[in-house]
Amino acid sequence: MKSKQKEFSWPVRVYYEDTDAGGVVYYANYLAFMERARTEWLRSLGYENQQLLDEQGVVFAVRRAAVDYISPARLDDLLEVVVSLSRIKRASLVFEQQILRGDELLCKGEIMLVCVGLEDFKPTAIPDSIMQEINNDR
Amino acid sequence: MKSKQKEFSWPVRVYYEDTDAGGVVYYANYLAFMERARTEWLRSLGYENQQLLDEQGVVFAVRRAAVDYISPARLDDLLEVVVSLSRIKRASLVFEQQILRGDELLCKGEIMLVCVGLEDFKPTAIPDSIMQEINNDR
Amino acid sequence: MKSKQKEFSWPVRVYYEDTDAGGVVYYANYLAFMERARTEWLRSLGYENQQLLDEQGVVFAVRRAAVDYISPARLDDLLEVVVSLSRIKRASLVFEQQILRGDELLCKGEIMLVCVGLEDFKPTAIPDSIMQEINNDR
Amino acid sequence: MKSKQKEFSWPVRVYYEDTDAGGVVYYANYLAFMERARTEWLRSLGYENQQLLDEQGVVFAVRRAAVDYISPARLDDLLEVVVSLSRIKRASLVFEQQILRGDELLCKGEIMLVCVGLEDFKPTAIPDSIMQEINNDR
Repeated sequence: MKSKQKEFSWPVRVYYEDTDAGGVVYYANYLAFMERARTEWLRSLGYENQQLLDEQGVVFAVRRAAVDYISPARLDDLLEVVVSLSRIKRASLVFEQQILRGDELLCKGEIMLVCVGLEDFKPTAIPDSIMQEINNDR
Repeated sequence: MKSKQKEFSWPVRVYYEDTDAGGVVYYANYLAFMERARTEWLRSLGYENQQLLDEQGVVFAVRRAAVDYISPARLDDLLEVVVSLSRIKRASLVFEQQILRGDELLCKGEIMLVCVGLEDFKPTAIPDSIMQEINNDR
Repeated sequence: MKSKQKEFSWPVRVYYEDTDAGGVVYYANYLAFMERARTEWLRSLGYENQQLLDEQGVVFAVRRAAVDYISPARLDDLLEVVVSLSRIKRASLVFEQQILRGDELLCKGEIMLVCVGLEDFKPTAIPDSIMQEINNDR
Repeated sequence: MKSKQKEFSWPVRVYYEDTDAGGVVYYANYLAFMERARTEWLRSLGYENQQLLDEQGVVFAVRRAAVDYISPARLDDLLEVVVSLSRIKRASLVFEQQILRGDELLCKGEIMLVCVGLEDFKPTAIPDSIMQEINNDR
């Protein structure tokens, strides 16, 4: 099922903790930035990660991440992290994400999340209530 | 109770992930290095953190950390992280820790850990079996 | 010189990246939260870290950090990180910092920063222009 | 140019700092583990990152990372991180990497690195001396 999801975007400021001795943001940290934006997108739909753990016993685990690093982000940069839901399945979601500094695209990624049970990390259907909010948001 | 604990030491290599745009190790990361060495000290006594969580329902939580930063560690440095147990109480341990590059002292800290229940994070007696190993090690 | 500095405060949201398998924020990460708030305090005075590196060749390095962990922060918490400048010297600043969740104090720290040259990490006077802004802010 | 590179492997222990509130290693941290192993592979050829920065003014920047997360790593796990060089070009290297716990494949990735100038982050030829060591190692 293809989705024409509205874009969601979240600002991220670059601090010393995010950078490395090369003077730029450490490559793994862009994935953390992307996760912050996905979490805020989920929150914008009325759901929090802790609530998913406690009430539903599920967690959205990353199954695949493919990231292109185009130009480095630097200390003090104010970035915009874009979230766009491109595919919805029973137990998984695929997001297209971009990290921008102003109009400049620094980094883009395709991230597949699978809804898994907390105990066994086996795939399980995305809870109906969340699925409804996702569909309402389209 | 004062302890003449044997010193334990653990090597840590500095990678890009540990450094920041100032060209040195980010100040919070020395605390992670210290925790690695305390974890390896615990493992040397026959205990692992996951096992404490699963079997005893306890975790050693840091109650206080006081760290002096003397000279910065840099990319590729091979550091030695020293663990010395300076005080043992029913529910808490105090460690004196040092981070060295060769003979040069880069950083030292005093870290107080409290044994807490996993659910409520309230202090609880250190399990007897661990206490015995700690005392045997002295 | 004792200061009656106005308090500055900065919000920090807790994401998965900040937590550990104990279900709470990893102890070293509170220091990163504190640094974000200090950086934003500096920005509120008109200065950025990269600019200090480029124009003045200096960096504020942490010389000492003493942190009390009172109660753990958890996933999804919205924290308030307070910055209060308690001591100003020619080459150093001491901050009292608090991390709050609503009215609850989770963590407090005293952090001493020294202004150092980027090349040798030796203490050097805080640039006049910054010192002026700090004094204006009191 | 296809390469039949010898495999290189590096052990990584999972500490609290690497895990998150889901009880497993945070997804971005596998990229840090992979980078540690690549750094050690480079060191095994006689080169260090700081030396590349200082002597050659270059850094290996990640241009693309595609990671499949198969099964989660957990606290205290001892992992093996495998490095295999699959493609060598004038200014870039492609690595196939695997993260294993015993015989179990937890995670695999394809990482493309580009040799860039430290100042402008523009691609530049990999220094001859390093290229020679890489070719000798095959």
